[in-house]
Amino acid sequence: MIEELSVGSSSKVDAIDITARVASIVNKGKVKDGVCRLFIPHTTAGILINEHADPSVIEDILMELNKAIPAEDGYSHAEGNSSAHIKSSLIGHSLDVFIEDGNLKLGTWQGIFFCEFDGPRKRKIWIKVSSDH
Amino acid sequence: MIEELSVGSSSKVDAIDITARVASIVNKGKVKDGVCRLFIPHTTAGILINEHADPSVIEDILMELNKAIPAEDGYSHAEGNSSAHIKSSLIGHSLDVFIEDGNLKLGTWQGIFFCEFDGPRKRKIWIKVSSDH
Amino acid sequence: MIEELSVGSSSKVDAIDITARVASIVNKGKVKDGVCRLFIPHTTAGILINEHADPSVIEDILMELNKAIPAEDGYSHAEGNSSAHIKSSLIGHSLDVFIEDGNLKLGTWQGIFFCEFDGPRKRKIWIKVSSDH
Repeated sequence: MIEELSVGSSSKVDAIDITARVASIVNKGKVKDGVCRLFIPHTTAGILINEHADPSVIEDILMELNKAIPAEDGYSHAEGNSSAHIKSSLIGHSLDVFIEDGNLKLGTWQGIFFCEFDGPRKRKIWIKVSSDH
Repeated sequence: MIEELSVGSSSKVDAIDITARVASIVNKGKVKDGVCRLFIPHTTAGILINEHADPSVIEDILMELNKAIPAEDGYSHAEGNSSAHIKSSLIGHSLDVFIEDGNLKLGTWQGIFFCEFDGPRKRKIWIKVSSDH
Repeated sequence: MIEELSVGSSSKVDAIDITARVASIVNKGKVKDGVCRLFIPHTTAGILINEHADPSVIEDILMELNKAIPAEDGYSHAEGNSSAHIKSSLIGHSLDVFIEDGNLKLGTWQGIFFCEFDGPRKRKIWIKVSSDH
């Protein structure tokens, strides 16, 4: 079964901490030991793990991605959002997190972020929780 | 069981849309709900999801990667293809896509691309289709 | 079950070839055909597949990442290690490798590297070996 989370970004480039919502899906399920898979069905967005204790970390990540991949750089795609597609390709669309004793197992400082590079928009995240058998 | 797709690139840096071939492997199998895993067994290639409706998107992605990671930059590896290894590391080698009702489940605009950064070459893609049990 | 590997980096930015240790975990298990999943529970580290025959390849990868994402670039995070968090986001935290006939199945030139971008430190790698059923 595929579960779906809805997220809304509030600016052009945005990162939304979805850790608690993903953990809640895992906690509501019956999987004790397994894997939680996340997939982003969009082409200007991505999924990322990094520090969520200090919000300046994710701000620095987005700022530096914006510098490394300029908004205008002689792109041919007519919609004007090529830099968003490129950042999305670098960050990636699928991610696996382990489940142990019914809980999502992340490192001490880790959170899961949905990243939008061509917002603001309403988006979906697809999630599959699988048990080790 | 691991299935194998063969792909051939036609230039130094190339992206090949393999969506229909991967979908066909999934459709021929008996997995109704599960995951299709892709793995690239090469060190100058990678696997990527992005827009495949307008081919200018993937062209812009490859162009910008070529700019961000120059072909010559004081590298020490003697074969002269270090930039290809670096781009391959950024794009990544493994990817999971969900299967629902026997079909590959991608976003509306998404396609799966095999990316070669040191072609033209003949290459392999390894694919494993697994059922939720 | 989640297995844990310990690794120690010896410099600020370091890549440690863990291929033999991961292969050994797979060989000691009873999984004939399946998947070996790796997860890095840290926010300044990542997991990477690339060439491990010639060590100059991974040196070039780290050198170019250091150039592309400068150590100082007007970051706001007060700990001074934002560039490490950014490199970690680009390289990624989870990776799947197939298992065939009880062995890890990698391409001819491929090795698995644990990458630290804010060392030297002692770190953990989490590993889950799953059988196709």
